[in-house]
Amino acid sequence: MITDLQAQINSYLKDHIQSECDEPTLATSTAYSLLAGGKRLRPALTLAVCKIFNQEINQDVLRAACAVELLHTYSLIHDDLPAMDNDDLRRGLPTNHRRFGAGMATLAGDGLLTLAFQWLSDSGLSNDIKLSLVKELSFAAGPTGMVAGQAMDIHNEGYRLELDQLKVLHQKKTGALLRYSVLAGGIISRQYATVNDLLAHFGELYGLAFQIYDDLMDVLGTEQEMGKAVHKDQGEHKNTYPGLLGIAETKHQLALALQGAQNVQHQLAEQTSCDFELLDEFLAYFK
Amino acid sequence: MITDLQAQINSYLKDHIQSECDEPTLATSTAYSLLAGGKRLRPALTLAVCKIFNQEINQDVLRAACAVELLHTYSLIHDDLPAMDNDDLRRGLPTNHRRFGAGMATLAGDGLLTLAFQWLSDSGLSNDIKLSLVKELSFAAGPTGMVAGQAMDIHNEGYRLELDQLKVLHQKKTGALLRYSVLAGGIISRQYATVNDLLAHFGELYGLAFQIYDDLMDVLGTEQEMGKAVHKDQGEHKNTYPGLLGIAETKHQLALALQGAQNVQHQLAEQTSCDFELLDEFLAYFK
Repeated sequence: MITDLQAQINSYLKDHIQSECDEPTLATSTAYSLLAGGKRLRPALTLAVCKIFNQEINQDVLRAACAVELLHTYSLIHDDLPAMDNDDLRRGLPTNHRRFGAGMATLAGDGLLTLAFQWLSDSGLSNDIKLSLVKELSFAAGPTGMVAGQAMDIHNEGYRLELDQLKVLHQKKTGALLRYSVLAGGIISRQYATVNDLLAHFGELYGLAFQIYDDLMDVLGTEQEMGKAVHKDQGEHKNTYPGLLGIAETKHQLALALQGAQNVQHQLAEQTSCDFELLDEFLAYFK
Repeated sequence: MITDLQAQINSYLKDHIQSECDEPTLATSTAYSLLAGGKRLRPALTLAVCKIFNQEINQDVLRAACAVELLHTYSLIHDDLPAMDNDDLRRGLPTNHRRFGAGMATLAGDGLLTLAFQWLSDSGLSNDIKLSLVKELSFAAGPTGMVAGQAMDIHNEGYRLELDQLKVLHQKKTGALLRYSVLAGGIISRQYATVNDLLAHFGELYGLAFQIYDDLMDVLGTEQEMGKAVHKDQGEHKNTYPGLLGIAETKHQLALALQGAQNVQHQLAEQTSCDFELLDEFLAYFK
């Protein structure tokens, strides 16, 4: 089921990205990172929630859902830059700046971030839905959300954080965008505020699980499995769950986050009388 | 009159920027560039057009108008980065990355770009107006607009462009955002499409004049007057109007652009029976 959604997302992105860039190198550099694969987790979450509420997945819904993947890809390109994490490898390929230079990589990121708001605002969805998506995404991704998380990450490199601080950092850096992705499905499907609040809460717990799992894999995984450099966080004295809590307690925290997400999932099913099993596939990913 | 508008803009930005950043260094770095002065030309154009149409300048209008200054400031911060123009001085102060490092400067820019869309979408203006502003700004600033212009600039460094190519480059790099700024005043004041088209055309010609003047000043001005490094374009074999046309012909082109803008200004006055003299102050700037 997720694979069906991923295929729809990949096809939409592939068909629409080149025509959105007016300069050839910029177009190549942008498509290079956007079409390099990846799980398409964020737009897939939006579309899965839409499907649960029997919202038809037409071209307008796809465009709005794919906007968050544009934004996510920008964050990866900028995060990899020499001035930030200085990574050489992403999804098994040279990072954007290794291939096109740091200037063009900066611009590809800037373009994708801006294009995300264009796609949210120029589809055939109703104005109220589009504006609500723009507002939520700008909060999630901006200087009180994702960008603040990135700044905390840079600023605290080499300093040991408390667990509470690490949770805030991850909530902003990774959680805010995943929370948005789940919530966006409710907004597009015109759900009541109480339902959207539950969706947002599910997204928060899902985001927490995601980050704990990512930290774990960085310790336990191999470079080949992950398609990027691993054991990197440790080497650079970055703050991670295993670093603060050890492997066993980190696994316990992951189980708690997943249990919390499942509880919210049950509440959603009760409140809406819809079948939320589709989200099981997303949770199974971490097991 | 422009000075009144500038004072209102400066005061709004100063009162609202710090609370929009959730990480202290990010907040300092963002405010450092945003509050470093500057003419506030873009939001002042929006507000001037609003005043011409007797639109009250309340807090909601100010917030929407100031969004373009957030976006403009991001473009300056990223443009100055070592990977781009590698500038040390901006508005008479060390550039953001010289003061806070390239990583934090990249994030300050990313945050300002995202915040621009937040301010456009979260004010008390009507949903239709807000959505229209988001759509227009994303087109103007994205990978078919400003970012494409930046990419052309990087990509063609050291190559001699034809005049037509240089015009397209500037239309995207500088013109698109000035066009948006004038148009935004019409959108906020709920003007008809025919009036908004004329406003956009005025903005295009104004943007052209702006860029020609900027190129001229780079040759004729002194570093002290400009608050940034001058004679830089020449040294790096950048494509400029004086470089392609010589000083005399460049001055002639500037006069033509200004004349064109004045013609559109008269058409606007005829069509709307409003007094467009307020725009004279903006045109006088180039004389």
